[in-house]
Amino acid sequence: MTVNLPLPQKDQLIPVKGFQMGIAQAGIKKPNRKDLLVMTLAPGSQVAGVFTLNRFCAAPVQLCREHLAGDGSKGEIRALVVNTGNANAGTGAEGMKHALKTCVALAKDLELNPEQILPFSTGVILEPLPIGKIIAALPVAVANLNEDHWFDAAEAIMTTDTQPKAASMTVQTPAGIVTLTGICKGAGMIHPNMATMLGFIATDVGFAAGLLGNLTREVADQSFNAITIDGDTSTNDSFIIMATGQSATQIKSISDPIYGIVRDALIALARKLAQMIVRDGEGATKFITIEVLGGKTEVECRLVAEAVAHSPLVKTAFFASDPNLGRILAAIGYAGIPDLDVSGVQMWLGDVWVAKDGGRNPDYQEADGQRVMQAQEITVKIDLGRGVAQQTMWTCDLSHEYVSINADYRS
Amino acid sequence: MTVNLPLPQKDQLIPVKGFQMGIAQAGIKKPNRKDLLVMTLAPGSQVAGVFTLNRFCAAPVQLCREHLAGDGSKGEIRALVVNTGNANAGTGAEGMKHALKTCVALAKDLELNPEQILPFSTGVILEPLPIGKIIAALPVAVANLNEDHWFDAAEAIMTTDTQPKAASMTVQTPAGIVTLTGICKGAGMIHPNMATMLGFIATDVGFAAGLLGNLTREVADQSFNAITIDGDTSTNDSFIIMATGQSATQIKSISDPIYGIVRDALIALARKLAQMIVRDGEGATKFITIEVLGGKTEVECRLVAEAVAHSPLVKTAFFASDPNLGRILAAIGYAGIPDLDVSGVQMWLGDVWVAKDGGRNPDYQEADGQRVMQAQEITVKIDLGRGVAQQTMWTCDLSHEYVSINADYRS
Repeated sequence: MTVNLPLPQKDQLIPVKGFQMGIAQAGIKKPNRKDLLVMTLAPGSQVAGVFTLNRFCAAPVQLCREHLAGDGSKGEIRALVVNTGNANAGTGAEGMKHALKTCVALAKDLELNPEQILPFSTGVILEPLPIGKIIAALPVAVANLNEDHWFDAAEAIMTTDTQPKAASMTVQTPAGIVTLTGICKGAGMIHPNMATMLGFIATDVGFAAGLLGNLTREVADQSFNAITIDGDTSTNDSFIIMATGQSATQIKSISDPIYGIVRDALIALARKLAQMIVRDGEGATKFITIEVLGGKTEVECRLVAEAVAHSPLVKTAFFASDPNLGRILAAIGYAGIPDLDVSGVQMWLGDVWVAKDGGRNPDYQEADGQRVMQAQEITVKIDLGRGVAQQTMWTCDLSHEYVSINADYRS
Repeated sequence: MTVNLPLPQKDQLIPVKGFQMGIAQAGIKKPNRKDLLVMTLAPGSQVAGVFTLNRFCAAPVQLCREHLAGDGSKGEIRALVVNTGNANAGTGAEGMKHALKTCVALAKDLELNPEQILPFSTGVILEPLPIGKIIAALPVAVANLNEDHWFDAAEAIMTTDTQPKAASMTVQTPAGIVTLTGICKGAGMIHPNMATMLGFIATDVGFAAGLLGNLTREVADQSFNAITIDGDTSTNDSFIIMATGQSATQIKSISDPIYGIVRDALIALARKLAQMIVRDGEGATKFITIEVLGGKTEVECRLVAEAVAHSPLVKTAFFASDPNLGRILAAIGYAGIPDLDVSGVQMWLGDVWVAKDGGRNPDYQEADGQRVMQAQEITVKIDLGRGVAQQTMWTCDLSHEYVSINADYRS
């Protein structure tokens, strides 16, 4: 099941100048499927990323962090390599060797240093990476490099995704038109920090040194870190923004008015991609937006949104289209705001005012709640009544299908 | 489904001198079922409780806290009243009035002050308590009061439980034999602080003033706060220990050697009851023990145990008997120990050493993991390798049946 998940159209995915993708079938877990992706960046590009906070982060995540933190003496980041079918996580020292070997092999093919490569893996945890298959398939992916391969790239990073996820935007800046195109994958083990297993956005905007790192974190917080499917933070989650700088739009500082235009475009694109992950959430039948306002801080709004979005009881009620809305109040109550005065809490389901001053709204009719719950897209609005901060999260319901998928994932 | 859940036998539930129970059918949600329980304590008894930390705690929980915190000028606690079918939570000021009215009516029947009554409710949230039905049925319950009604009492507090939960123990102390008998209910919306929706233990041990409060918290932490089914902390969770003092065993201080004997007995009984809740967990097909050792603090051991016990991915893997054990490593990694060195982490599934020094144990064979996963009772042991603290939690798997039950709970 998916919830209003758009299938990307090949001709709507706009190439980004200076950015190429090549795909191969390495046979990592299953034969005859695209499971290896190489991406290359023209000289002068910039790359920034945010990664899982999981302490059992995968070997490639550790290597990405190292390579991005380098002093540049080995040269800038020029290529990325992604395999599906195996996460290379929980694989100890051997896993690190495999991730490094992948970089070394690709560097040789591309005439780069291994430190110029970022490696990514996604799939099953705790099993050794079939390094031989990957190294054998790398030259095939390199030979396939092309600016037009966004759709195939989106397919090549899928695991339990039911369809590829990709989107493009063009934005007019005072300096001209810029392009942003991104892909992502993920449908389970999805929770903030990071929320997606993998997300990549490329743009032809140019950034002065030092700008892209903070911007990437800001974009992630407003998008991939604001979705949850099952509350499990993966070992491999990574989100990367790559800027080739091959357009006339060059941003020198955050006070540049173009910075805001590009930031908003990146957030819009990243949100669209992140929401695709929720719409393809394992077993999802509903797309749910949780808006929390009236908080003292964004942090406490986030706590409440997460508690509601994460509650199996709330999620099964959405699956059943049952306005068992006390479960949402219970989740607000245990979200972790110790001094929350519940008598100031209001809650709406769609346009229906359900909870008033911490109790059932006397005017609330169950039939109205029932009507809203039938929809495929539902918004829950919660006013904490104690401040002006707000946060929004996106999630899906919890269905039989989620259990089936995760009980069968490896088979 | 239940997992090795013992059906209590009436003749094995031992009366506690000075403690009586009376049951009635108030027709609160459904007709013809026991849904109202009154419990009375002889003069001189002591009562202590721990309650949900949910900010949307139910009206009766608020009243319980007030009555237990009283200065005794209105007299000691002498009675408890429990209804199922309605939680009287998320009901605002009206809910408080209803809880108080219940106490006033029962106090009149028993010739007590309302402040001597502790009220409890469990069931659906956000719906008004049918106070008229409860008040009408109270005299029936009072007329039914008897020391022998433990089994009926356990039945009268059930909601989604598939069977009543009760257990008894006798313990020899230097002063003679003492009796402990308890009941509890709960099968969903189960998570620490508190873990049960309702638990009551009575004993004929006598305690000097001030001892029972701390002891009750200690017992709860070792039992009801160490289980999780779905991670939802209810609005109504309450755990009460009642000591009638009607045996020769009278404890004057915590340095009294008998104190340790009675504490251990209370913990053993409370664990037995708490584990019954997991064994009756909504949709449970497996009973899972998570032992975390080698931590720096008990708190961090608890964080890891909770993360593993709470992960839908881990729980669905148990349901499928699939040794997809990387999911457990992932949960350890995101449990919230920022400086965890995963290369020191070991993991066993039953007697099988799965993860060694943070990676897959080279000697691990999937067939061995598969064998352990087939069992109904499974122990996961995790050694964090950084200290001597340890904690144990109990949980169940996540099955299709959980989704069905919670998608249908109100119908």
